[in-house]
Amino acid sequence: MSGAGAGTSAPRPGGGDRLAAAVARRESQIVLGLDPDPARLWPAPAGAPGPTPGPPAGLAGRAVSAHCRAVIEAVAPAVVAVKPQLACFERLGAPGWQALAETVAAAHEHGLLVIADAKRGDVPVSAAAYAQALLGATPAPGGAVEGLRADAITANPLLGEDSLAPLIAAARATGALVFGLVRTSNPGAADLMDAELADGRRLWERIAGLIDALGRDGRGPASGLSDVGAVVGATAPEHLARMRELMPRTPFLLPGVGAQGGSVEALAPAFAPGRAGGLVTASRSIVGAHRASGAEPAGAARAEAERLRRATWELA
Amino acid sequence: MSGAGAGTSAPRPGGGDRLAAAVARRESQIVLGLDPDPARLWPAPAGAPGPTPGPPAGLAGRAVSAHCRAVIEAVAPAVVAVKPQLACFERLGAPGWQALAETVAAAHEHGLLVIADAKRGDVPVSAAAYAQALLGATPAPGGAVEGLRADAITANPLLGEDSLAPLIAAARATGALVFGLVRTSNPGAADLMDAELADGRRLWERIAGLIDALGRDGRGPASGLSDVGAVVGATAPEHLARMRELMPRTPFLLPGVGAQGGSVEALAPAFAPGRAGGLVTASRSIVGAHRASGAEPAGAARAEAERLRRATWELA
Repeated sequence: MSGAGAGTSAPRPGGGDRLAAAVARRESQIVLGLDPDPARLWPAPAGAPGPTPGPPAGLAGRAVSAHCRAVIEAVAPAVVAVKPQLACFERLGAPGWQALAETVAAAHEHGLLVIADAKRGDVPVSAAAYAQALLGATPAPGGAVEGLRADAITANPLLGEDSLAPLIAAARATGALVFGLVRTSNPGAADLMDAELADGRRLWERIAGLIDALGRDGRGPASGLSDVGAVVGATAPEHLARMRELMPRTPFLLPGVGAQGGSVEALAPAFAPGRAGGLVTASRSIVGAHRASGAEPAGAARAEAERLRRATWELA
Repeated sequence: MSGAGAGTSAPRPGGGDRLAAAVARRESQIVLGLDPDPARLWPAPAGAPGPTPGPPAGLAGRAVSAHCRAVIEAVAPAVVAVKPQLACFERLGAPGWQALAETVAAAHEHGLLVIADAKRGDVPVSAAAYAQALLGATPAPGGAVEGLRADAITANPLLGEDSLAPLIAAARATGALVFGLVRTSNPGAADLMDAELADGRRLWERIAGLIDALGRDGRGPASGLSDVGAVVGATAPEHLARMRELMPRTPFLLPGVGAQGGSVEALAPAFAPGRAGGLVTASRSIVGAHRASGAEPAGAARAEAERLRRATWELA
């Protein structure tokens, strides 16, 4: 079902152990963010066939799929996972979802995990439908409809524990992970996530407690890592030690490095439970590396991803 | 662009005025929720051609599209809008998104508004991509890719004001609305939305203040209604008066009536700014009305929607 094959006939390992094994095998904690903009794709390779004429959505979907495959092929040796931003595919309609499915397949072919950056959150019955969409399958009279086969998803916890439960249950059934948003890296995150509660804590600290509690039953016996992770904006590094205190065995997904202004060196507390405790995501700084250097896109992306891989690996 | 045509060459009215005009014209505040489950669709009409053989996702997508069109045709006279739950389409992959686009088109053909129940929320750059997906269009070398053309969307406010701003900007450009989640109707909503803040308020009250503030610049001159709405679970009716106090000109989207246990009579405070101030959503109680009565699905759905329409209209 994915690039992190179990390799035995034993029960499939849980998400925390699968993640830790993938990080160790690839010697990388880097997650390649894929946010394709059809107006800023890599040029097609010289000699490639031109686009097949057709409606704009189909053209854009095929171009995005080819771009994502090229980026994955260039960068795969330096990364452990890809993180497609679902909004960037969804905006191309059905052809965009086709491109997303093809991108998942390309990542799995290269042995990479797929973290679907979905940030879904809904009432339980609808959360169960999102779980089918992203992690499981949907029963139907003509046969089960397979979902996206992601190895992990991001989720929005605002609607509370029962809104996350169907996602976590589906993740446990497939050896996947759910990364809940605890504190994001945008300025507006201060509006609600930093709200001070009556007990003196911040809202994000309460969310962190919820994420920790939900993951306790899903700690991997090999790695000790939970299968419920946390999205933790790296632009607020002063929070990281407190985050780790509240969520000692939780994998952290750390956006905000590179283009958003975070720095790798500030991330050390993330790695307390092991290297897989801190996944560093980078999108524009890798995919757009050629814009600064003038080099050809694939080589520039590979070099930047490898630089980031080594810098992070040496820290942890 | 939708069923609520402006009818003049003047600038397109804002979302609040469009909503109020649609409610007045159709004499309905009822929103038909569409949560299609491919294993529980209405039977195809007698004499309809059987399904074209093919992969399960395509079969299910076509069946869901036909079901939604049949439900819309049955119920349209009694409702003002449809609210497709995006999870239920997304779980069928690209064919599901095709079915969603066809469902939007069917609703518009019948003069209905479309509220995309997306509950999206993301950092600003990704929120802008969701805005393109649901409300706008995406520039691409092969021509602009049109989005879903929804008349309104639901959104998750956890990431703060800057995460909602791109959605609201796109809504204002197209005469649409954004309904932010203020207090949902699931039990888990108490976990975070009801959290007590240091200033004595609940988190949902702070969210309500944010929604009110974001909508002040978008009040329609004709109706006084804001183009930023609020999703307000009707299973907590004791909160409604306080909600209205905090958001005096905000349209409320009220799920939880019917299958989830809310009652129409408790909703009166919602209608203080006019009938369009309270939209009552119902899904299973309409689409599944035949299961209790044994009648044929279309007639049972139409009768239940009309019963709900009249009961609500008389209240307001």
